Amino acid sequence: MEKLTVIKIGGNIVDEASVLSAFLKEFAESPSKKILIHGGGKIATRIGDSLGIQSKYIDGRRITDADTIDLVTMVYGGLINKKIVAELQSIGCNAIGLTGADANLLPASKRPIKLVDYGFVGDVIPDLIPVDSWKKLLEIGFVPIVAPLTHDQQGQMLNTNADTIAQEIAKALSRSYEVELIYSFEKAGVLIDTSDDNSVIPVLDKKTYEQLKRDQKIYAGMIPKLDNAFEALNNGVSKVIIGKAENLNRLLSNSSGTTIINE
Amino acid sequence: MEKLTVIKIGGNIVDEASVLSAFLKEFAESPSKKILIHGGGKIATRIGDSLGIQSKYIDGRRITDADTIDLVTMVYGGLINKKIVAELQSIGCNAIGLTGADANLLPASKRPIKLVDYGFVGDVIPDLIPVDSWKKLLEIGFVPIVAPLTHDQQGQMLNTNADTIAQEIAKALSRSYEVELIYSFEKAGVLIDTSDDNSVIPVLDKKTYEQLKRDQKIYAGMIPKLDNAFEALNNGVSKVIIGKAENLNRLLSNSSGTTIINE
Repeated sequence: MEKLTVIKIGGNIVDEASVLSAFLKEFAESPSKKILIHGGGKIATRIGDSLGIQSKYIDGRRITDADTIDLVTMVYGGLINKKIVAELQSIGCNAIGLTGADANLLPASKRPIKLVDYGFVGDVIPDLIPVDSWKKLLEIGFVPIVAPLTHDQQGQMLNTNADTIAQEIAKALSRSYEVELIYSFEKAGVLIDTSDDNSVIPVLDKKTYEQLKRDQKIYAGMIPKLDNAFEALNNGVSKVIIGKAENLNRLLSNSSGTTIINE
Repeated sequence: MEKLTVIKIGGNIVDEASVLSAFLKEFAESPSKKILIHGGGKIATRIGDSLGIQSKYIDGRRITDADTIDLVTMVYGGLINKKIVAELQSIGCNAIGLTGADANLLPASKRPIKLVDYGFVGDVIPDLIPVDSWKKLLEIGFVPIVAPLTHDQQGQMLNTNADTIAQEIAKALSRSYEVELIYSFEKAGVLIDTSDDNSVIPVLDKKTYEQLKRDQKIYAGMIPKLDNAFEALNNGVSKVIIGKAENLNRLLSNSSGTTIINE
């Protein structure tokens, strides 16, 4: 099967123009078929503040009310997405900016209200992802740049976590491609000592992960990312790497970051 | 040749949710291959006001400074574009929202500074339009929904008039399709009496147009639109129709609006 690289970059990369440019340069040069999913960044909060839209949180999770979904549709789907696309086009990468509503690429359902009403937050419906449309875009030679937005198929845009979107795309396309999933973020990988970027665990298997969790040696913020990674591996994804966006070439060549393996 | 309908809707349609929905319903039902180009609407001005970005005009033409290009990239390329896409997807139309930067669909150059510096305004470079990419998107079955934004191929988004974009797309694709170009706006067509929607000229040829201009019987605001229409006809477009967005089916069946013809 042909190789496909699915890369997620976090909002902190998006916020720093020089770091973003360095990343995009290596991304553009990477020869395989590829998809980029970008997070939001602080700019949405800043623009929201100017518009008098306050960020609301319950238990540390952002609540997406009607004003906020319009805000993130503008900022993630418009401003950030098109800036990345225009920059990639300027360096010879045939980027096409998309949300999950475009070509119905990421059908989702509004998260049901249980203890908390998260508002306009979407959970991707994996079985409805139109693998054929994704494949056609890739076969044309386009490089999809995906904003963290889905839709409910009834006309409503929904806010969706970029890590989750990356995982769902990677899983769905693993039936057609040999998929490598890269979660890039501000740290050099999964660290034994979160304050020391030299303490990267080069390879992390499930058993070691469970042991480290029991010993409380995994930084709490990493746990959803790692659970995501193992779920991807359990669903057809060939390889998951976690590391620094600035080191993309080295992540791709396995000489940086943490490679997550199943056994 | 296969038929392709290129439709431009103005900002005033975009601003009225019920009118927009009625239009989108008929648009979704139209069986031919199709492309929709949408204008901006007052919402950009409203959001700009809230953000403290003032609209600047010289001789009635908007100046696009650095803040304004970010604003319209957000609002046109994000908010408006994705709302239209999500609504079309909800009624079975496989819409894909795009700007001219995406897949390099509308390469442009920043308008040179002569008497006036219009700022980040782009003039489309017709010879560089990637007809093959447009055709591939249409062949997949996607329906492109185009925001009035282009790019300079060096990383900068540019503001571009939606009428002009519609005309350039129509011309470029007329080598591959039998293209019908529809400019929809708030009037029922080209009117003899601008205050009377019943005074529509059903068919307007070049000679009559020139005569009406000499007699100052054409509303000044219509002149760029009509010049655009005749230029499209001179460059391979089969038919141009001007009329009300709400009457799309009737425009398509030639029973409403003004049909522009060359001889």
